[in-house]
Amino acid sequence: MARYGGIDLGGTKIQAVVVDEDHEVLGSARHPTPTEGGPADVALAMIGAMREALDGAGVGDGELTAVGVGSPGVIDDEAGTVTSARNLPDWEGTYPLAGKLGAAFGAPVGLANDVTVATNAEFELGAAKPYNSLLGVFWGTGVGGGIVLDGQVWDGRGGAGEIGHVVVKYDGRKCPCGRIGCMEAYAGRGAMETRAREKVDEGEKTILFDIMEEKGKTRLSSGIWQRALERDDKLAHHLVERAVHAIGVAVASSMNLLDVEAVVIGGGLGIRLGEPYVEKIREAMMPHLFSDHRPPDVLLASLGDLGGAVGATLLAAEKAPAHA
Amino acid sequence: MARYGGIDLGGTKIQAVVVDEDHEVLGSARHPTPTEGGPADVALAMIGAMREALDGAGVGDGELTAVGVGSPGVIDDEAGTVTSARNLPDWEGTYPLAGKLGAAFGAPVGLANDVTVATNAEFELGAAKPYNSLLGVFWGTGVGGGIVLDGQVWDGRGGAGEIGHVVVKYDGRKCPCGRIGCMEAYAGRGAMETRAREKVDEGEKTILFDIMEEKGKTRLSSGIWQRALERDDKLAHHLVERAVHAIGVAVASSMNLLDVEAVVIGGGLGIRLGEPYVEKIREAMMPHLFSDHRPPDVLLASLGDLGGAVGATLLAAEKAPAHA
Repeated sequence: MARYGGIDLGGTKIQAVVVDEDHEVLGSARHPTPTEGGPADVALAMIGAMREALDGAGVGDGELTAVGVGSPGVIDDEAGTVTSARNLPDWEGTYPLAGKLGAAFGAPVGLANDVTVATNAEFELGAAKPYNSLLGVFWGTGVGGGIVLDGQVWDGRGGAGEIGHVVVKYDGRKCPCGRIGCMEAYAGRGAMETRAREKVDEGEKTILFDIMEEKGKTRLSSGIWQRALERDDKLAHHLVERAVHAIGVAVASSMNLLDVEAVVIGGGLGIRLGEPYVEKIREAMMPHLFSDHRPPDVLLASLGDLGGAVGATLLAAEKAPAHA
Repeated sequence: MARYGGIDLGGTKIQAVVVDEDHEVLGSARHPTPTEGGPADVALAMIGAMREALDGAGVGDGELTAVGVGSPGVIDDEAGTVTSARNLPDWEGTYPLAGKLGAAFGAPVGLANDVTVATNAEFELGAAKPYNSLLGVFWGTGVGGGIVLDGQVWDGRGGAGEIGHVVVKYDGRKCPCGRIGCMEAYAGRGAMETRAREKVDEGEKTILFDIMEEKGKTRLSSGIWQRALERDDKLAHHLVERAVHAIGVAVASSMNLLDVEAVVIGGGLGIRLGEPYVEKIREAMMPHLFSDHRPPDVLLASLGDLGGAVGATLLAAEKAPAHA
């Protein structure tokens, strides 16, 4: 009776789950990602989150068959290392994450790119289960993407799936990545916040930052955008529609190139805004879609916030001794 | 000792070749594509071109092991039909092209999409031979594309590879396809000619149309663009640079998504303008390339004008009785 652990390591949160052999969630826990210290502190926080998930599942520390981790940065699964995870504290170098976690739980540890893991989760267990090819779009602070073709993740030379950096306007806005006109320059929650602050400086009215202060936050989280839309804030509507438009254009370009069966929209903002905005992305895609007589199915990610962590348990299952 | 025939069916020309088992060209012939009549007339012209290629190769009509055809339109290789080849005369419906050619040469006939065939030719026999993954960009009247991933052509649900319709500017020029801001709206030879005519109507000076008249043509062919560039025509330089820029942006977007090892630039205009313009496309790609520390190799197609026909002989080899 195998028990798998899965951890989604994000810039703001660490999500851990424990699942059974059918990848049904038995227990889960969410801890904030340390903003100070270094990789060792992050690893400790991951171990803490996993221990809490094990507690909730009634599974002992030593009973995990294997652990999987979806991580940002450059992953070397064979070496068990994560390098240059730049949105994590002091993680410019190479850290032996698999070894640390493996020692804590006495189990093999698999590592993979966080977006690849989330895409594979939706493909194997989530909204894209009925399909054979898939484009995953993860709409959060940035916009990540993952590709599955003929049942296999396609990651090129390790850098494929960067749908956030598909160009939508070659002489357009500057992207947080430093390049011009990327989709993420319009659609990333980070870029949307930058634009909102510019607009406020230009004298535009919005309740976005009032809600932020009420909530005691320093950033415009997905929940804040959602609240502002519900309260019919004009600037929030304008910036979200602009984001939806950019995502639609980039998805259309990607479809014209790849012609996959389905597109799954996930990520913090994607999941928070949900179905009505998935429909808006579909509508924004259509005018630029070449094979518009046969559009792909555009779907909301069905594993929600747990998608990354549940996806990581698929990695764990691959690392389990029976598969070794 | 097998002898394969290959035919590249284009909107303006029919190129036929006869090759040996190593796909070395033994004979070739090029005939104009009929502009009147219907599919049966086109089939006759194809048979005529192949007979001339056989003559040149010293191979008898009945000695072909198999024939391959790269064709525009919707291909059904199993049924042996081509449907909706809209740049060919009166070819809206379905025509049994494989049956017609098979009867003429007493050999099995394989059909595939012309751009797929040309991409595969560069992958198996041409510039991309050393690589395992490839984006082919065929720069002509339109801009077609083909994708090879892990040694296999990826054509999605039959409509992949439309790099000409990757969006470079969502609120940009209208494309011949009717959509807005496609790369082809800037880079297709058709769109470039439209723009040149607009500029002339606006009073701009150019020798493009003088060269066209000298050559007794009604369209700005690739040779005319090349001649005008050589004579330092300002408008020709401007429009070709604009095209190169759009191709570079679309190739960068495609790389950000696919991260393949190599990009091969072919097509009538690509081959005519050659290496210096391949280098310009590479330069135009770089600013929008996400993994710019590891750009793909960007190469000129090495099979030249015969690429499509030679690629079709690969199809023929697959159809040969030994493979059946």
